[in-house]
Parts: sequence; C-alpha cells; structure tokens
Amino acid sequence: MNINQRLKDLREVMRREHLAAFIFPSTDPHQSEYVADHWKGREWISGFNGSAGTAVVTMNAAALWTDSRYFLAAEEQLEGTEFQLMKLKMEGTPTIAEWLGKEITANRHPYEDWTEVGIDGWCSSANSVKELIADLRKENGITLRTNFDPLRQIWTDHPSIPQDPIEIYPIEYAGESCHDKIARVRQALRQRHADGMLMASLDDIAWTLNLRGSDVHCNPVFVSYLLISSKSVTLYINKKKLTPEVSAYLKAEDIRVEDYEQVKNGLKKYFEYNILLDPDEVNYALYEVVRNKGKMNDLPKTEIVEEESPVKRMKTVKNEREIAGFRSAMLKDGIAMVKFLRDLELRINNIENEPLTEIGVDEILTALRAEQPLFRGISFDTIAGYAEHGAIVHYEATPETDIPLRPEGFLLLDSGAQYLDGTTDITRTIALGPLTDEMKKVYTLVLKGHIQIELCKFPSGSSGTQIDILARQAMWREGLNYLHGTGHGVGTYLNVHEGPHQFRMEWKPAPLVAGMTITDEPGIYLAGKFGVRIENTLLIVPYMETEFGKFLQFVSLTLCPIDKSPIVVEMLTREEIDWLNGYHQHVYETLSPHLTSEENEWLRTACAPLSVR
Amino acid sequence: MNINQRLKDLREVMRREHLAAFIFPSTDPHQSEYVADHWKGREWISGFNGSAGTAVVTMNAAALWTDSRYFLAAEEQLEGTEFQLMKLKMEGTPTIAEWLGKEITANRHPYEDWTEVGIDGWCSSANSVKELIADLRKENGITLRTNFDPLRQIWTDHPSIPQDPIEIYPIEYAGESCHDKIARVRQALRQRHADGMLMASLDDIAWTLNLRGSDVHCNPVFVSYLLISSKSVTLYINKKKLTPEVSAYLKAEDIRVEDYEQVKNGLKKYFEYNILLDPDEVNYALYEVVRNKGKMNDLPKTEIVEEESPVKRMKTVKNEREIAGFRSAMLKDGIAMVKFLRDLELRINNIENEPLTEIGVDEILTALRAEQPLFRGISFDTIAGYAEHGAIVHYEATPETDIPLRPEGFLLLDSGAQYLDGTTDITRTIALGPLTDEMKKVYTLVLKGHIQIELCKFPSGSSGTQIDILARQAMWREGLNYLHGTGHGVGTYLNVHEGPHQFRMEWKPAPLVAGMTITDEPGIYLAGKFGVRIENTLLIVPYMETEFGKFLQFVSLTLCPIDKSPIVVEMLTREEIDWLNGYHQHVYETLSPHLTSEENEWLRTACAPLSVR
Repeated sequence: MNINQRLKDLREVMRREHLAAFIFPSTDPHQSEYVADHWKGREWISGFNGSAGTAVVTMNAAALWTDSRYFLAAEEQLEGTEFQLMKLKMEGTPTIAEWLGKEITANRHPYEDWTEVGIDGWCSSANSVKELIADLRKENGITLRTNFDPLRQIWTDHPSIPQDPIEIYPIEYAGESCHDKIARVRQALRQRHADGMLMASLDDIAWTLNLRGSDVHCNPVFVSYLLISSKSVTLYINKKKLTPEVSAYLKAEDIRVEDYEQVKNGLKKYFEYNILLDPDEVNYALYEVVRNKGKMNDLPKTEIVEEESPVKRMKTVKNEREIAGFRSAMLKDGIAMVKFLRDLELRINNIENEPLTEIGVDEILTALRAEQPLFRGISFDTIAGYAEHGAIVHYEATPETDIPLRPEGFLLLDSGAQYLDGTTDITRTIALGPLTDEMKKVYTLVLKGHIQIELCKFPSGSSGTQIDILARQAMWREGLNYLHGTGHGVGTYLNVHEGPHQFRMEWKPAPLVAGMTITDEPGIYLAGKFGVRIENTLLIVPYMETEFGKFLQFVSLTLCPIDKSPIVVEMLTREEIDWLNGYHQHVYETLSPHLTSEENEWLRTACAPLSVR
Repeated sequence: MNINQRLKDLREVMRREHLAAFIFPSTDPHQSEYVADHWKGREWISGFNGSAGTAVVTMNAAALWTDSRYFLAAEEQLEGTEFQLMKLKMEGTPTIAEWLGKEITANRHPYEDWTEVGIDGWCSSANSVKELIADLRKENGITLRTNFDPLRQIWTDHPSIPQDPIEIYPIEYAGESCHDKIARVRQALRQRHADGMLMASLDDIAWTLNLRGSDVHCNPVFVSYLLISSKSVTLYINKKKLTPEVSAYLKAEDIRVEDYEQVKNGLKKYFEYNILLDPDEVNYALYEVVRNKGKMNDLPKTEIVEEESPVKRMKTVKNEREIAGFRSAMLKDGIAMVKFLRDLELRINNIENEPLTEIGVDEILTALRAEQPLFRGISFDTIAGYAEHGAIVHYEATPETDIPLRPEGFLLLDSGAQYLDGTTDITRTIALGPLTDEMKKVYTLVLKGHIQIELCKFPSGSSGTQIDILARQAMWREGLNYLHGTGHGVGTYLNVHEGPHQFRMEWKPAPLVAGMTITDEPGIYLAGKFGVRIENTLLIVPYMETEFGKFLQFVSLTLCPIDKSPIVVEMLTREEIDWLNGYHQHVYETLSPHLTSEENEWLRTACAPLSVR
C-alpha cells in the first residue's frame, strides 16, 4: 500500500474542488460498526484497519483519531505514513474540529480562501454531521460540504457492494414471526406519534425480517434499507441477493421489494404526515432528503420525528426461543473451549512438538468450533495475544507479527462463534507456565472486577454506566484501569456487538431489563508486558420484587472454566471465592455429559474448588 | 389556608384569559432550589411546602408532581384539597404534558376551543419552558403562554421581594478576590467563544462578588442578576440592600449597580456580538429578550451561546482558604454534635425528665451550634424524625406532628449550620434503646453503603453517576433502595446544596475533581416504620498518579461518631470495619482537645474500636 501516493491523489482532487480538508469516518450508509469492503475508505486512505477511527486529511497534514483499543495497533499501522495518531479521550487530544481550526488557520497559504471541508454525507449519521457542522462553525466559520466523495475518482480498485444471497432465519430460532415483529414496531411508532420509519441498521433489518446474509465479515447481515409506513413495508435491496425462496417469503409477508439505490426515491414518495428517523442511525444524506421535502421541490413536507429507533430496544430483549438458542450455542462453545484448553496444555508441556503460535491457536480453536452442530463461522476475528501482544487490545496476529507460545506468561484469548442458534463471545487469559507476582496481582484484580459484575443485583431499568464501576473499583485502588467498555449486548445469530445497552464509564442511557444479553469483560493491559481480560456473556433475569420495585440479576451463559492458577487467593473476598466455585461447579455439571473421560478428567481439575490457605 | 377558594379565584382568571390550565413550578427567576417567600406561588396555590414540586390546575382538576423525598409529606399536605399527588419517577406517573393532554382533551366541554396553557416565563428556566413547549405540542397541539402571571391578581397578601442589606464576605475566608474571580470567568468565557454572560444563580453571584445576603431562609444569598461583558460588570439589585460599605466595595471593584428591574433593559443594551446564557439557569423571559433582539425591535442581534455557566464548576472547586474554613467549621460542628449526642443519651435514660420531643432535639442542637464562634444560623431546616417519622424523607416537625422520644428505636437527625468560615451538613441515626433485627440489618446496610463511598478511589473526572452504586449495592441485594441522590456539593458559607456534581442514579455529567466537597448520605426509609440515613461531608483529594492517569479519593470533613450500637458486625467486611475504626480514631483525636473530661469520656466510648466477635 502506498499511502503517500493515495494522499497525493486525494489532494489533487481536493485542490480541484477547493476543499481545505476531507474527513473519512469508519462507517457505511447504515452506521455499521463493521463494514463491507466497499465502504473501507478510511482504511484505504490511511492504512489503519481498526473497526473505529476517523482519518482527516488537509493539504499539509493528515491525522487519525481512534480509541484506546487501537492505540498500539494504529501506531504500528500508521508508521511511515504522514498520519499522526490522535488518541481519543486522552488529555490534550484535540477534537477533529479543533485540529482543523488550527491546521486550516495556521497553513492558509497557498489556499488561504478555502474554508470548506468535505465529508461523504452517505457515510455519516445525521447527528454526527450536524454536530460537526456546529463544531466547525465555531472554528472561524469553517463550512462542511457533504455531497461529494473523492474516493470515486481515486480509489480505482474499489470493491463493489456485496451481492451474496440471503437466507430465511427459521422461526424455531427467531421465536417471533416477521409479521408479529412489524406489528410491534408499528405499535411503538404510534406511541411515538409517528406514521412510519426508515430502518437503516443492518442488524435491525435482519432481526425484523427474520433474514440473514453474509455481506459483512463475521456479521450475518445484508446491505439494505427498510421503509415502514402505516400501510406498507418496503425492502430496498439488490434483487440479485434474493433467492426464489426468499422472494416467496417476502411476498407472503406482504413486503415490497425495490432496488437498493431507490431508497432516496422511496423517501420522496413517502406521503404520510411524519416519519421516525433515528438521527444516530440514518445517514445525513437520507435525513436531508426528508428534511428538504416541501422546501426544495414540489413534494409535500414530511415532519421528522427524531427519536431512537424502537427496534434497537426490542431486538436486545431476547424471547424464550432465543434464550434457549443462546444456551445451546454456549454449550457447544464451551465444549469446543474445553477441548481446546486441554489440547493447549498438552501441547505447551510437550517440548518435542513444533511450537504452537498465535495463529495456530486461532486455527485449532476455530476447527474445534467448526465441529459443533450449526456452526456458521466466527463472530469476530480471534484475538490470540501471547505475552506483550496480549497488551494490544484488539490484536490480530498476522504472519508478520505471529510469535510462538512458550511455557510461561499469559495467553490472552478473546474469541467467539456464530451458530445458527446463537452468537458467542468469550475471553480467557491462560497461564502457560510460571507468572510474575505482577501478573498474578493484575489477573486477580481483573477477576475481582469480573465477579463483582456477576454478583450485582440492581433495579430494573438501571443503566450500564451505573454498574460499570463494580468491574473497576478493585483495580482503581491500585491505580490501574482500562479505557474500553466493560460489556456490550450480543445478538441472536447476529452482530456480536449489539447496542444500545452497555457497561461503560461514559453515559449510556439505555436501561437494562430482563431478557437482555450483556458481556462482562474487564481487562488490564500493561503495554510491552502483558494483558489480562476475563469475559463471560451474561443474561439478565429477575431477582426479586419488593416495595422498592423490580430487581434484576445476571446469570452467566458462558460455560468454560476460568484459569485458577494465577489467582492470589488472599485478594478475593469469601463471596468472590464462593461465586467462582459455584460457577465452576455449574460448568462441570453442564459440560461433562458431553465430553470424553480424558476431557472430563481435565475439566474436573479445572473446575475444582479454589484451595483457600 | 383555603386552597379550594384560591383555586376558584384562579379559575376565574383562567376563564377570563381563555387558559385551559396553569402551571406553577417551585422556583424563582434565578432557578433557586429554595426561594424567598415572594416566589412561593406554588405553595400558595397548592398548600404543599416542599422545596421541589410543580402544581398544575385545569378547569376541572389539579395535580402536584414531586419527588420521592416528599411523597409522604405531600400526601399529608394535599389531603382535603383537590390536588392529586403525582409521584415522579414511579411507574405509571404521567408527565405534566401527558396529563394535560388527557385532561384537556377529556374535559373539553364547556371550554372546548381552549388549548392554551399558561406558565410564568420569569419563574422557569429557558430549557424547561422549551421542553414543555415541545412536549405540549405533541399533545394535540397544546400551546403555551408565558407572559402572564395570574397570581398578581389573586394573591392579595403577596410578600414583597426581600430588601435586607448585604455584607462583604471577607477575603480571609473566600481566599480569592472578586477581581480575580471575574478575570477567571472572563477567561472561561473566551474559551467558550463568548463575549459576556448573564449570571442569574444567586449563589454564583454571591461567590463571584464575595458578597453574602439573607434573602432566602438558610441560604446566605441576595436577589440580583450579574451581567458581565468584556468591558464592564453590572449588578442588578434593589439599591436599598447596599450599605455604604458595600457600595464603596463595589465601586472599588469597578462594578456598576442598576436597579433589579432594569435587567431586561440591560440585556437590550448589551451590544457585544454574543452572550453566554446557561439555559438551565436563565429564565425563559430573559432568554426570550435576548433571542428576540434583532427580530422584533431596532436592537442589533445578539447570538446566544448556550452552555453551562463556567461559574458553577469554578465555585465547586474549593481553594486552600476555603478548605481550611471547612475544616474549622466541621470542628465546631463536631463539638456541638458531640455535646448534643451525650446530652441526648443522658436525657433519654433519665426517666424523671420531661420527655424530649423532635422539636426539642432541634432546639437543643441549634443552641449548641449557636455557642460556636462565627455561627450564622442553620443551613437547612433540621430533620429530626423519631420512629416512623424517620421514614418521611424531608420531615420537619411541627407542633401538630411533634412526638416525644422514647428509649427505643431510631432518631434520624439530619442537620447543618452556616458558619462564616463554612457550611456543614451531617446526618446521624441514633439508637435510643432496643432495636428490632430489621432495624439493625437496615442500619448496617446503610452504613456499608456509606463506607463504600468513603473507600472509593476513582479517575479524576469520573461522574457521580458512576460512583453512586457503591452506596446501594449492599441494599440492592436485599431488594432495598432509596430514590433520592446519594450526595451533593456543599457551598462555602453558601447553599448547602451546591451543584452541578452529585452522586445519583440519574446521569450527572459534572466531572468530579480534586477540591470539591460532596456529601455521602445513603438511606433506607420503611414507610410507617423507621428511617436510617448516615451522612458525612467529604472532600475530594488526590490519591495517586499512574500511567492510567490521575486518581482521586475522598476524605471525611465531618467530625462526629457514627452510632455503633445498631451494627451487625458480621455484615461488615474487614475493610469496612477498619475504615470505621480509623474514622473514629481520627474523630477522637481531633475533637478531644476541645471537650471537657466528661464529654471526652463519652467520646472515648463512642469512638472505641468495633468489637469483633
């Protein structure tokens, strides 16, 4: 990749268009976290391949903003390019608007009259563009152009939008028909005084229609829009993706089909009084189409109801079939994990073997998962980081970085799978041999944090922001922390990151209610040394009801032992020890009927009660 | 008070003005939490005297919204009136707009064309009115009139605005001159790209000018506005309040003085490009004056910078002099509390005495505080609730409700004082004799919550919403909770409630930084039985700095033993016991040099280490 040549080409286009800068966010027209290759423009221009990050290029400078998960990865990938790394949420890091304000003012010559900056209005949410416009205006009145994409001219080998076929998601796993879901969406729209809505989130559309695709790596979604009015439902999609079976299904469900590119016209021909557009979901270009109706053309005005899409919340609350599916998927995933952990132990301790590497870990584990029924692939790129690689939060081993495991220190293994009946996400940190005291202490602090979340009881409707500190309080007392969130929702054979509810330090108003899945994954990363993270996927269930309302609790869905060998037992409370022993007993009882006697022998030891001195 | 007659008078005015309803919030033109009698219109029309609550009156119905602190008090006070109680944050409680939507639609006859509702634009913040307008519009297009106050016609014995003199707050306590504070405010305004600001919060004005007044019961503030431009500073105040000394001081500080009523004209004659108006602080009427400049008259347009006032944050971070003042005030308050607690014990156990009542408790404690140097009054109305009265969160004993204390159960005592060098706020729950097991368990749960906050270490800039759960986790596991916040800032010889930082379940973005004061006051209230609350005022101080940033911790400023007799020791962790013993040792060492030998004997027992079986 010759990033500098690409920047040169870009600046030529910017010069022609009198643009002082161009901004490349990481998303697509659907606000996806992970996007199809067609929309990896930010990666193409910068060389940085993380899932979150924004590249900004001026005539004289280039910078990339990303969050703490990617600091180390971005540093490596941006090396040798013009791009400087901007670490989000660190003291002293300017916002994009502030940086542009300084860069454009400081470097006016020879383009001193240009105060216009570009961004592709299709690939940013309405809210993010509106905020950017307001922020830039404060910087000496910089303006934003949103209707121009320079990549069309310079990205010559641009991948096309995927055309792969989609499939029906069986009702036995979905637990609720498309018909019933649309009826619930319409009811929610009426409560919000809205006649209809435009759905743009790919996982919301897949959930609503009980359809799945394969357009995004690890995410079984398909590129489309769904326009719901009080009278009709229209799916905007490339018709090549529809098998005869899916076409028949859509017809039976009374869902019209139009070409993907027709969504703009669909909005123009939407003739009801108002429409719900979630401004964090719908892209700025489509938002502007609706906003300008009745202003710039003959079409009647449509009021925009700006609210969070009701589908987000509905999708996160799992029904009984979905919960049963999760339990089935977790059982299979636990079996694969136990087989893998035992195999890993044997290999590490057998010095005659070819040494296992990080990529080897991924291959073996994925092969074991693939043996399980209904396996459909991994749910995200496996993070297998040995020793100092464990400190790179979103590390993905490549042939260039791959290193052999030695019988010492930690292997951090964050992985998951897509099964037709559910999605998994699990992290274990495994001691491969002797550990330092620092490693043991850090491991125990992370484990304490993990267990404190598992133990938490809370009023229905609490937010993840309230609960997050339970995972951090023990490490904060030692001056340690992690800057990423503590947990996220998990889809039903859908995206492994499912919002809007989360555990995190920042405010997330999404209330936690019974039926939601959420991961519990604190970590500590000591750059250049090692990383520790321990993650289970939890289900929220009722706890008790009193005069103070309904209280909820978590139960672990994940079934896999947590390595006991690094634990400093004296650092755990009696309650924390009891939780760990109880969890291990449950894991053993659930998994053992499905394992060989050799595997069971290993599991019995792994799940034995913690020895308290 | 004849509430029904007042409602009749009001409805006559509403009928003349074609208003379908009128809304009475609890605040004044300065968004004060506690207001001068002149602005107690909501209390006058409804009879409810709590500090927070909104009364709404239609032609056929009346309702009052208040929060959980006042549910029991409001129920009592509204009894026999038309007002129905609307419990905020409880499931099923409609918003004011929703209720009005239903009431006005349901009861159209005989006023079926009236869809206008009134509110006094002077006594509501710009944001609250803007939100109300948007919410009412959704309810079949109800509109809001903001320029009419019916109380002017019907409240015949309306108290006037206070005219009491103000005084200079000495620099030895303030620690920073008015001149330096204004320079800091101007610097903050420049950072926000603002030329000036209108200050309306009475405590912000008192803090900025180093002046104090006595216009609001328990709050040493004075009614005024402060208009800061890049060139001048103008205080809008009733000139009768200015002593020659204060006038000379203001002149020396180059602060102009105009009549209070002239603020509107002052804004009209503000000729700079823009002005910062905090829309949660500035009332809607004044906000509209600025917004309409350049629209409805010949005056040039002034852009409004809508941001939180920078003064709020500045004021909450105490300087060294202020912290020294707090320590001095707390020492005096602790001495008074110890004298009181010892005296209480003697009186309760001496059956020959006239039995002490709740009002008696207040009188004795206030008299002991008044003996201390620099005492200026109480900082809020003492809450002395015995037995079931302890479960009324903001209980204030009256001759009608006053009950004698018996040698059993709990006395909940929440009180504080204004000293010239600092403001105090402390709650203790005192066992007067035998307790039930439930009382002991509840007391210990509250104590655990209190201690968990005291023990917390956290990254600088964390929010109180993140930390709040530490006070609740133990009680949530038992299905118990309290719906009020866990803590608030405390002013320097200013308001006992000082924002914007708080510990609470709801989102409060105000970041916690070193130098802030904050109370730690979890509670549990079992209606009809008893209440428990334990409160210290804390100071935020540095803890450590690591590669993960600056970490902060709390130290208790309050100096007073916490009753050990109700504690179920087995429910406390070793760490919690250690904290309590360490705190008591600190209390004893700090207070004992200032006490008589009899008092010291009592204190030694009260502060002795907890006996662990």
